[in-house]
Amino acid sequence: MQLTHIEHIGIAVKSIEEQLPYYEGVLGLKCYNIEVVEDQKVKTAFFQIGQTKIELLEPTSEESTIAKFIEKRGEGVHHIAYATTNLSEALKDVEAKGVKLIDTQPRKGAEGLNIAFLYPKSTGSVLTELCEHPK
Amino acid sequence: MQLTHIEHIGIAVKSIEEQLPYYEGVLGLKCYNIEVVEDQKVKTAFFQIGQTKIELLEPTSEESTIAKFIEKRGEGVHHIAYATTNLSEALKDVEAKGVKLIDTQPRKGAEGLNIAFLYPKSTGSVLTELCEHPK
Repeated sequence: MQLTHIEHIGIAVKSIEEQLPYYEGVLGLKCYNIEVVEDQKVKTAFFQIGQTKIELLEPTSEESTIAKFIEKRGEGVHHIAYATTNLSEALKDVEAKGVKLIDTQPRKGAEGLNIAFLYPKSTGSVLTELCEHPK
Repeated sequence: MQLTHIEHIGIAVKSIEEQLPYYEGVLGLKCYNIEVVEDQKVKTAFFQIGQTKIELLEPTSEESTIAKFIEKRGEGVHHIAYATTNLSEALKDVEAKGVKLIDTQPRKGAEGLNIAFLYPKSTGSVLTELCEHPK
């Protein structure tokens, strides 16, 4: 498995709108995309900084895992996503090394990328996503 | 203020040694430096991935802020550090925009870099560090 860079950092927030003055006004990042991921019950906002994106995650329903995360832990970093050139191979590789997979097969995430999540118990308590960047 | 990339992601851990099999063995990252930052009462381990470093933070004392963080929230992401070309200017800039500073002046952090922390109440609940990369 080859990881090339941090693809994004997912941050759970109650309201994207309330966070824009900080990310755009203070940090000077530009929000280039806002989209709703229906099956995850979240609205996402993306900001690029160098190789990495900041992905704000706002729950669109109280049953969203993001809503439950915020209820339990408050707003803050939700997951780290590593970019890999071949996700299917990466999943086989980490599973063979004892990592428990949340997604046993690649699935479509925000921005149409192939993604998969790993169980935090296998990843030092950090919810971890692998994200395919074929280039 | 110009932010160029995510300089590092700080992750609070109980034991660096226990995390090495995951970061090195599973993710395939190489730990290129372990150092103790005495005044912060932490041991740090660094791994480079693309433009970004993963910084594991292990408390060396029960009074370490990292020990308190782990006691309260468990292991996990502790802070995000953004790289900026001019830290003094960046601090003036964000303070003028209403951000409360933990470090009002740049100070030396791990790896000898000039750093400063911002209060999470000003940064959407994410503990945020600015880190000077002059190049």
